[in-house]
Amino acid sequence: MDQLFSIENPLMRAYTFYNSILCLKMLAMSVLTASQRMKNKAFANPEDAIMQKTKPKVDENVERVRRAHLNDLENICVYFVASFGYLLTNPSVAVATMLFRVFTICRIAHTLVYAVVVIPQPARAIAWGVPYFITIYMAIKTAMHFAL
Amino acid sequence: MDQLFSIENPLMRAYTFYNSILCLKMLAMSVLTASQRMKNKAFANPEDAIMQKTKPKVDENVERVRRAHLNDLENICVYFVASFGYLLTNPSVAVATMLFRVFTICRIAHTLVYAVVVIPQPARAIAWGVPYFITIYMAIKTAMHFAL
Amino acid sequence: MDQLFSIENPLMRAYTFYNSILCLKMLAMSVLTASQRMKNKAFANPEDAIMQKTKPKVDENVERVRRAHLNDLENICVYFVASFGYLLTNPSVAVATMLFRVFTICRIAHTLVYAVVVIPQPARAIAWGVPYFITIYMAIKTAMHFAL
Repeated sequence: MDQLFSIENPLMRAYTFYNSILCLKMLAMSVLTASQRMKNKAFANPEDAIMQKTKPKVDENVERVRRAHLNDLENICVYFVASFGYLLTNPSVAVATMLFRVFTICRIAHTLVYAVVVIPQPARAIAWGVPYFITIYMAIKTAMHFAL
Repeated sequence: MDQLFSIENPLMRAYTFYNSILCLKMLAMSVLTASQRMKNKAFANPEDAIMQKTKPKVDENVERVRRAHLNDLENICVYFVASFGYLLTNPSVAVATMLFRVFTICRIAHTLVYAVVVIPQPARAIAWGVPYFITIYMAIKTAMHFAL
Repeated sequence: MDQLFSIENPLMRAYTFYNSILCLKMLAMSVLTASQRMKNKAFANPEDAIMQKTKPKVDENVERVRRAHLNDLENICVYFVASFGYLLTNPSVAVATMLFRVFTICRIAHTLVYAVVVIPQPARAIAWGVPYFITIYMAIKTAMHFAL
């Protein structure tokens, strides 16, 4: 356990590495939203719209990106906490690293099939479901490990 | 302090246990949303609606669950960070564990009275307010403890 | 590294202090939303509206505060995780503390110019952009530091 919060610990290294990739992925959503707002001249605020000589409006392309972004918040923020608890259950480094990697790849795929190139279901359902069940597994394992 | 990040530390055990319960509670919101979407045939995306031979539409039952989910994000994510700081202020184990427990129970109650069985106010106001003030207490205690 | 998770470590102290200020700032959004809902008698739920003898409605002043709140969730939650990883890259205390401070001040300014006293662009763009690029810097530094 003294080893856990050490940058020599491969578990902590993998956890921190994939978290930072997920952070960059989430930050990219703001650029994606902004580009859709510019492209469709669809702004939420009058002070933004006026710069493009238009009025605030709702656009489906913008809303789609915003739904993908909100889905990130709902799923990735919970994962950050569930995976932190999971770290404390002393998991195998190989299994944990694989779970972090699969989670991260699937969430990037989720954004691509939801908000960049829309692909028919079940593409998005799979890209959402795999990370979802990884998070549930981590949370249940943690809850059982630390059950009072 | 060397003791804090130890799985032998009862403070850390309680923190991690209740966090994982809160994670599971938040993950359950996705199931609740999906079940309301199916039941009311109210989907946000054309590629989802087409599977039920319908068009995207907004439904109040779905929106209610989504408001409850967003309220979770607004309140529980902040709590995760505020309570982590609070851990570092060396609180009494008994007080901290009680706060974690009350927070968790109230947030579960919040979901029940908001999105499962709607109960007139002030049920939801209480289930929201108690965790809210617990989080404020933790954040203020932490800010004062580490004031520069 | 043994020093990192110590309350004697000035890096950890600064991190925890500014996090708790950001938590309080985010919690204040709920008060701001509630006050706009009361002032404009614009409630989302029938059980809330009935107490003011009105019906649920959407009000632009309420929506503006809610957009500011959602923007906090999108940006500050990611920062909490990116800055935690950044801590593990052994940054200079002076630089890290300055980044935490600038991030926090800009996010408070963001709320003020977005949801309290609306100021023409680019006020909000700057108050959003500076923290955004701080978070990107932290996430990239962390990803490079822990690259597998």
